[in-house]
Amino acid sequence: MLMEHRTRDGLGAWLAARRPGHSLPAPLYTSEDAWLADCDAIFSRHWVAVGLACDVEEAGDVIALDIGPSSIVILRDEEDRLRAFHNVCSHRGARLVPPGRSVVGKLVCPYHQWTYDLDGALALAPHMGVDFPRGLHHLKPVALRDVGGILYACLSDDPPDDIDELARVMEPRLAPYDLRNARVAHEQDVIEAGNWKLTMENNRECYHCASKHPQLSLSFHAADFGYDPDGLSDGERAESDALAEAYRRHGAHWDAEGLPHAAVEHTVGWPTNFRTQRLIIAGLGESQTPDTRAAVTLPLGGQDRPWSGDMHLWGINSWNHVMSDHAVVFAAYPLGPDRTLVRTKWLVHRDAVEGEDYDLDNLTAVWRATNAEDAHLVALAHRGVASAGYRPGPYSRFTERALDEFSTWYVDRMTAHGYAG
Amino acid sequence: MLMEHRTRDGLGAWLAARRPGHSLPAPLYTSEDAWLADCDAIFSRHWVAVGLACDVEEAGDVIALDIGPSSIVILRDEEDRLRAFHNVCSHRGARLVPPGRSVVGKLVCPYHQWTYDLDGALALAPHMGVDFPRGLHHLKPVALRDVGGILYACLSDDPPDDIDELARVMEPRLAPYDLRNARVAHEQDVIEAGNWKLTMENNRECYHCASKHPQLSLSFHAADFGYDPDGLSDGERAESDALAEAYRRHGAHWDAEGLPHAAVEHTVGWPTNFRTQRLIIAGLGESQTPDTRAAVTLPLGGQDRPWSGDMHLWGINSWNHVMSDHAVVFAAYPLGPDRTLVRTKWLVHRDAVEGEDYDLDNLTAVWRATNAEDAHLVALAHRGVASAGYRPGPYSRFTERALDEFSTWYVDRMTAHGYAG
Amino acid sequence: MLMEHRTRDGLGAWLAARRPGHSLPAPLYTSEDAWLADCDAIFSRHWVAVGLACDVEEAGDVIALDIGPSSIVILRDEEDRLRAFHNVCSHRGARLVPPGRSVVGKLVCPYHQWTYDLDGALALAPHMGVDFPRGLHHLKPVALRDVGGILYACLSDDPPDDIDELARVMEPRLAPYDLRNARVAHEQDVIEAGNWKLTMENNRECYHCASKHPQLSLSFHAADFGYDPDGLSDGERAESDALAEAYRRHGAHWDAEGLPHAAVEHTVGWPTNFRTQRLIIAGLGESQTPDTRAAVTLPLGGQDRPWSGDMHLWGINSWNHVMSDHAVVFAAYPLGPDRTLVRTKWLVHRDAVEGEDYDLDNLTAVWRATNAEDAHLVALAHRGVASAGYRPGPYSRFTERALDEFSTWYVDRMTAHGYAG
Repeated sequence: MLMEHRTRDGLGAWLAARRPGHSLPAPLYTSEDAWLADCDAIFSRHWVAVGLACDVEEAGDVIALDIGPSSIVILRDEEDRLRAFHNVCSHRGARLVPPGRSVVGKLVCPYHQWTYDLDGALALAPHMGVDFPRGLHHLKPVALRDVGGILYACLSDDPPDDIDELARVMEPRLAPYDLRNARVAHEQDVIEAGNWKLTMENNRECYHCASKHPQLSLSFHAADFGYDPDGLSDGERAESDALAEAYRRHGAHWDAEGLPHAAVEHTVGWPTNFRTQRLIIAGLGESQTPDTRAAVTLPLGGQDRPWSGDMHLWGINSWNHVMSDHAVVFAAYPLGPDRTLVRTKWLVHRDAVEGEDYDLDNLTAVWRATNAEDAHLVALAHRGVASAGYRPGPYSRFTERALDEFSTWYVDRMTAHGYAG
Repeated sequence: MLMEHRTRDGLGAWLAARRPGHSLPAPLYTSEDAWLADCDAIFSRHWVAVGLACDVEEAGDVIALDIGPSSIVILRDEEDRLRAFHNVCSHRGARLVPPGRSVVGKLVCPYHQWTYDLDGALALAPHMGVDFPRGLHHLKPVALRDVGGILYACLSDDPPDDIDELARVMEPRLAPYDLRNARVAHEQDVIEAGNWKLTMENNRECYHCASKHPQLSLSFHAADFGYDPDGLSDGERAESDALAEAYRRHGAHWDAEGLPHAAVEHTVGWPTNFRTQRLIIAGLGESQTPDTRAAVTLPLGGQDRPWSGDMHLWGINSWNHVMSDHAVVFAAYPLGPDRTLVRTKWLVHRDAVEGEDYDLDNLTAVWRATNAEDAHLVALAHRGVASAGYRPGPYSRFTERALDEFSTWYVDRMTAHGYAG
Repeated sequence: MLMEHRTRDGLGAWLAARRPGHSLPAPLYTSEDAWLADCDAIFSRHWVAVGLACDVEEAGDVIALDIGPSSIVILRDEEDRLRAFHNVCSHRGARLVPPGRSVVGKLVCPYHQWTYDLDGALALAPHMGVDFPRGLHHLKPVALRDVGGILYACLSDDPPDDIDELARVMEPRLAPYDLRNARVAHEQDVIEAGNWKLTMENNRECYHCASKHPQLSLSFHAADFGYDPDGLSDGERAESDALAEAYRRHGAHWDAEGLPHAAVEHTVGWPTNFRTQRLIIAGLGESQTPDTRAAVTLPLGGQDRPWSGDMHLWGINSWNHVMSDHAVVFAAYPLGPDRTLVRTKWLVHRDAVEGEDYDLDNLTAVWRATNAEDAHLVALAHRGVASAGYRPGPYSRFTERALDEFSTWYVDRMTAHGYAG
């Protein structure tokens, strides 16, 4: 009985064993097999967040990004088009571009100087013979979509078409912030000692916020993420009623300004899992900063909307908070069964100047603290699910509904890709 | 033929291939599969040493201990009862208590503040709804037995009942030393670069002592652990005859004082493997110290018995030397196929004061040196069994009989738990 | 489709999937299973380079060498004979000799002092009983061949007999350099972050030399390793014609001096893969040094042959450059699927004195630089083949013919040893 949760049985048995309303069976979090399957079925066959249009601002700007054992390059070509390719030379497979940011004229493989145009065409392959069919050795393209300035890629040849739905919902919501013309003011990588699904579960609830995230809680209404209506103290109930009233007032204001705000959920039943909602920022209401005031004087998109709140967006491997003065975008990449990279970027107006328009420490303080706290929690959760004593536990139907949906979605998607038996 | 020892074949074939009188087939020491199976069949279904009653002296004292991928908490509850639980929150599995020692009022999960009484009852689970059946989410208990102050736990719901036999034999042997009221004067963790079974085999013979443990050999009679009677030099034979005579004299003395001393072996055929015997200490005969004199002026249990020797006890994952002035207890925990934690605790009378009643360096010198020497030997042994050239070798029937029995016991227990094919 | 290259399917499917003219399917480079199979089928059942006769110059000189998870000792016995054994005590398997160089009278196991004569006979096994059949517990011998001073070992009991062919071809080629009486002036270990087959592929082409090895290119004619005759510039064609003419002149000279020089290839179809050819050194033509002049005033074998070029020899896990003034010998040992040790030794006349007859920095400069460059390339290649976007790519039929043959040989040998399904 104890052994069964460490068995090498097919994943199918564990996918089948998942009980609705409960966290996943342990091997789905801990086993090498599940990790490899996730890299394939989730990270290679779904649209995952990979960066920002403004990461590659000009023709020849290139970003290389590892996704599990794979790697892709994202670049802007000479016609100003965004493109992505597998970061793999068509010759003997060497990595073309080192991780991070580069500026190039062409993509030249460091091994044998095979040279590709920015559209992926093989321009030069020395010593392959005059009859070598260069046209057959184009870089392998990766499907790429720019949704309001946030880039999603799908490594498979058959990407899910409901990315159109994400674009339909999010383009008008993100348009006012003009993220395509924003600038990355700061970037941080944190390696969490846990499975990527624990990273995502941790992110999709705020049940732990009040006690674990003192800084974030100044600007977050934890109640936005659910609560037990019968479990409130009188003070909490008054607060919750006041928040509901605030949403009525803000909603009317947002409607008047043409700012979409309703919650849209696109989870179970869809390949491209996302949820969005405009949230009220707590405290002084402007931004996720230590004093809840805007951190940047020059607002995103050039127009100040101090009451516009937080345009919140969750994806398969990402979460985003877009505010009037700045945005924070997060993406998670699996490094191993028990290691996940969380990459955070803070975005400001491209013309905002550090030291003049914003203080970098103030801009980044809340989420630097929150990321460190979350890394600790994810490590605790991973060590827990790896224990013989772990049994999938009950999600709160009030505060963890989104986790239940995420786990259900995960099992569905793995099943859809043939891992169920 | 070479490959066969690295195959992924079931463990059953390797358990079946073990030849009596010989060390184990290599994959039983080196493979990930065997390690996982050992964590299950041995470390989760047998009684293993986990600490001391005096580790958790007062109500609210808690120790968290990792056992393979699992973790348990051992605590003293408000009725002064010792209890153990899986160190896993019933909610989403997070580790409740960090490794090591804590003092708590209740057990509060650091993730979402689920709160457990010291008897494991779920006292508080916020936002789970008024109808949430808290009674179903008790901490999962772990079977725990205090045998003369040494704690044994079994992670399975069906622990072997022959722990009663260990208690029957050892309670009277340990009673004079009152270990329940001792104090841990020093604790040391050593990570050995070898499989836990090589750690245990290394411990269960003293064939290597004379050449490898110069310090320990001052207080150890290697002959206690067997020798070839036909292979002795004249000097060795005189020594061996003198030792036999000393045992006759000591035996009479021990009988007169009511100190049990006969060897008791409880190995092949029993789930709970142990061996105990009262041993004569060499040299001046008092203690395992550099000068073989007592290291502590205030004896264990308050009564000085300078000639009581070494109440020696071997267990599945542990070995112990209990002397008049102090005790040294050791336990091994598997960290991976080729990594084992050896935790050593030096126990003194609870009122003994460092610097007055004992010198810590003198108290710990012999076994600190011996542990370091053993770690080196276990690493050599592990690298050896991992080699293509390894074939299970012959145990000496004089000096390694206990290893033969341990290996036979191991194969039997794995078989009993369904790993034989 | 993406997943298929990470599957746990038998290696047989991947061996069968290899297309002629193309690099190997990814799992053959990246999987743990392939690594274990390579350690068995290639490194334990073929003749691999393990060192030099002059590594163990005198009776009692011992070298211990790890080959994958295994370890061997190579020694010179009291009759001045070279011998090799598994570095595994016949008792409980402990490593007998630590890695590197030792000088011993007998081989004494550090664990229980089992003692072996230098011919491997068990001389002493204390406490095993007077009737213990020591003759059955001889050290397990390893087949060893000295080919012109270069040592090859085969760990299997059934070594391929075409080592005779290697000896027949190479003895006369190596004789003039008297490597058996050379001396190791410098030794360097580099750990490359890639599979050993990528190390060997990288070594068997010079397609990357011009752009990646500026120092080596001063003394190497890349054209020696193939080029596209239709892809040359006028300048390159003139160079290539000049080189062909130089070979005609040198060939006549070498014939006159009795120096064998023709290319001999012994690859596909043979167990013992090797290729040899005498190459012209570029520049001033004397040696692979920064100024292409001899680095050592006292030549190998005592006779100066400044125009004798580079006696080049490739093996399964080795490559060698033997020049008039010094030799550089390289061997690769697999440490894991993605880690390979490359050990380089620089050989000089045994009487050559550092600081007088040669400057160590000058002697080693070219290959120290080249090894560092190659380690980088192998790491890029390994990361590439591990990516979802990798597909086996086309080898150049001009510059990578030797790789195609090596990959074909590899698949054949794995098949011959039963890994094909």
